[in-house]
Amino acid sequence: MWYENKVTQLLNIKYPIIQAGMAGGVTTPELVAAVSNSGALGNLGAGYMSPEQMQETIKKIKQVTDKPFGVNLFIPENAEVSEEEVIKANEWLQPFREELNLSEQSEVKKPNALFFEEQINILLEEKVKVCSFTFGLPSKEIVQKLKKENIVVIGTATTVEEAIANEELGIDMVVVQGSEAGGHRGTFSGSFKDAMIGTMALVPQTVDNVNIPVIAAGGIMDGRGVLSALILGAQAVQMGTAFVTSVESGADKQHKEAILNSTEDQTVVTSAFSGKPARGIRNDFITKMANHEEELPKYPIQNTLTKSIRSEAAKQNHPEWMSLWSGQNPRLSKQQPVSEMLAEIISQVDTIIKNKNEVW
Amino acid sequence: MWYENKVTQLLNIKYPIIQAGMAGGVTTPELVAAVSNSGALGNLGAGYMSPEQMQETIKKIKQVTDKPFGVNLFIPENAEVSEEEVIKANEWLQPFREELNLSEQSEVKKPNALFFEEQINILLEEKVKVCSFTFGLPSKEIVQKLKKENIVVIGTATTVEEAIANEELGIDMVVVQGSEAGGHRGTFSGSFKDAMIGTMALVPQTVDNVNIPVIAAGGIMDGRGVLSALILGAQAVQMGTAFVTSVESGADKQHKEAILNSTEDQTVVTSAFSGKPARGIRNDFITKMANHEEELPKYPIQNTLTKSIRSEAAKQNHPEWMSLWSGQNPRLSKQQPVSEMLAEIISQVDTIIKNKNEVW
Repeated sequence: MWYENKVTQLLNIKYPIIQAGMAGGVTTPELVAAVSNSGALGNLGAGYMSPEQMQETIKKIKQVTDKPFGVNLFIPENAEVSEEEVIKANEWLQPFREELNLSEQSEVKKPNALFFEEQINILLEEKVKVCSFTFGLPSKEIVQKLKKENIVVIGTATTVEEAIANEELGIDMVVVQGSEAGGHRGTFSGSFKDAMIGTMALVPQTVDNVNIPVIAAGGIMDGRGVLSALILGAQAVQMGTAFVTSVESGADKQHKEAILNSTEDQTVVTSAFSGKPARGIRNDFITKMANHEEELPKYPIQNTLTKSIRSEAAKQNHPEWMSLWSGQNPRLSKQQPVSEMLAEIISQVDTIIKNKNEVW
Repeated sequence: MWYENKVTQLLNIKYPIIQAGMAGGVTTPELVAAVSNSGALGNLGAGYMSPEQMQETIKKIKQVTDKPFGVNLFIPENAEVSEEEVIKANEWLQPFREELNLSEQSEVKKPNALFFEEQINILLEEKVKVCSFTFGLPSKEIVQKLKKENIVVIGTATTVEEAIANEELGIDMVVVQGSEAGGHRGTFSGSFKDAMIGTMALVPQTVDNVNIPVIAAGGIMDGRGVLSALILGAQAVQMGTAFVTSVESGADKQHKEAILNSTEDQTVVTSAFSGKPARGIRNDFITKMANHEEELPKYPIQNTLTKSIRSEAAKQNHPEWMSLWSGQNPRLSKQQPVSEMLAEIISQVDTIIKNKNEVW
């Protein structure tokens, strides 16, 4: 069958579909479990989670599925930030805070390197089946440690060179993130602008240059996207935006609504929310901060500075100041339960193959 | 068979592959004829041609093929330009001219509206089978005039809205140009930045919103790309970069070499050469002009200002100052005769279908 290949075998799943490990509350235990229970791979987006929070959530997921699922971690980054940069950024953010009646400025939280090690230890302790990384490469030691425990390790790349770097590290398979993708760019070497490669171009060029399986991401929302990615040479797809609007997703309702009501030309790549380029639906916050983008503190500093604004804007139902991550395919988004969505996708692929076989 | 559909029927060609009507000398009569003789649709890029030049070239094409071929025209644009803008642009271009020993500055040629009408008349006179438009919409009168003579009319779009506008005008089919595409962006409504939609996202969203056949362009270089575009819902593909490096292409040898030796992360969208955003391989000219991009005279003014620099740079073998248009898939480029290239693509599609049928 079209859905049987090396990736589904290695991941022990039925369909070559991976739900992206989106951080920030989207990947509820219900979402992850629903995806895995439907035969695809659910993923907990643990990037922003404390080790305790992560362990607790993994335990919850295990209560609602006995199928394999993965956990996505962010490679920690040591953003160098000056006090002056933070002061300037806080000045630009002040009008938003005032309008929202937020009295205090967010504290700058420096990333904790131990944090990441603890996350890895919990993965091992909880015997999670799949671990994926975004924003860089883990150390060789970590890769070996995970693989020794039969944990499948998945990397993220936005260029052929980054995919090769993943392969050279011994990583099992690599997600290549096309420019269509919503949320943060996974670029970790060179400028993100040079790495805005469309999925149609990124997949075949990567497939030709690595031996590990390639997982296509970016602009894939339905059976047409799944099948065309497989034709391009990918052995699986990773979908993010498609799952954000699902019933089980923990995304804010304004976020879901924004995707459901957007068109392909309304997303933009911005660093305004987090200090790292990410694709989301253009809104007032992005527009007002656009001129400062180059001067903002880098991720994750800017992310901590805007955190209270984003969450308070959600509470006060003001989507114009929320981060509304979305890929370039919002016209294909639907609000439906995960099981229904995945059944539709599989059925769509089956139908395309059946119809084509009759004619071709 | 997979290659039989409404587009091949309407265009009276065997394979649903269209060679993009690239202007600027790439589409020699030999290239156009070789494409059409191989069962695809060759296209003369007549955008920059005088009516006389265009007619002469059409006659030459007819001498080497009796198969259908098309002509691509640019919708004329009335760039408003101030004397001051031109003076500034010429100042920025002066160092390049001096280095190349070009004594004179290029004259500003305003676009001639009659020119376009004459081009249309020649199409009718020469009974060219297919006419495609880029950079905008022709008038309803022109569309009707062409269709009355059984000329198939093809439009270009970079968003769903632009595709709908083409359909509403009575245009027969529409090329949707994904962000991966090399050369000039076809965006004619709104900002080109909003219309940088990856092919993987642009095709299905357009297919869902128009009834006319959709032709996918952007990042398609081989059988994988062709088949995946058809799976996404396109009824044909348009390929540009793949043909630039062909033996029959009239592209400068430095241009061919640059594509053959580039990687996916080396192209950039720039307005420096023509005043209109276009994707090409990053070089010294683009880098040096980057800071002035917003202040340059619009297309076609800037194009005439840089013309002598580009052609003299080619003569002096200085590719760093040439416009090296390329899509995001240069790793898949090959230097080979068109007949061989197209036979390989067809055979690759056949093989994918055969292999998949066995397994799926």
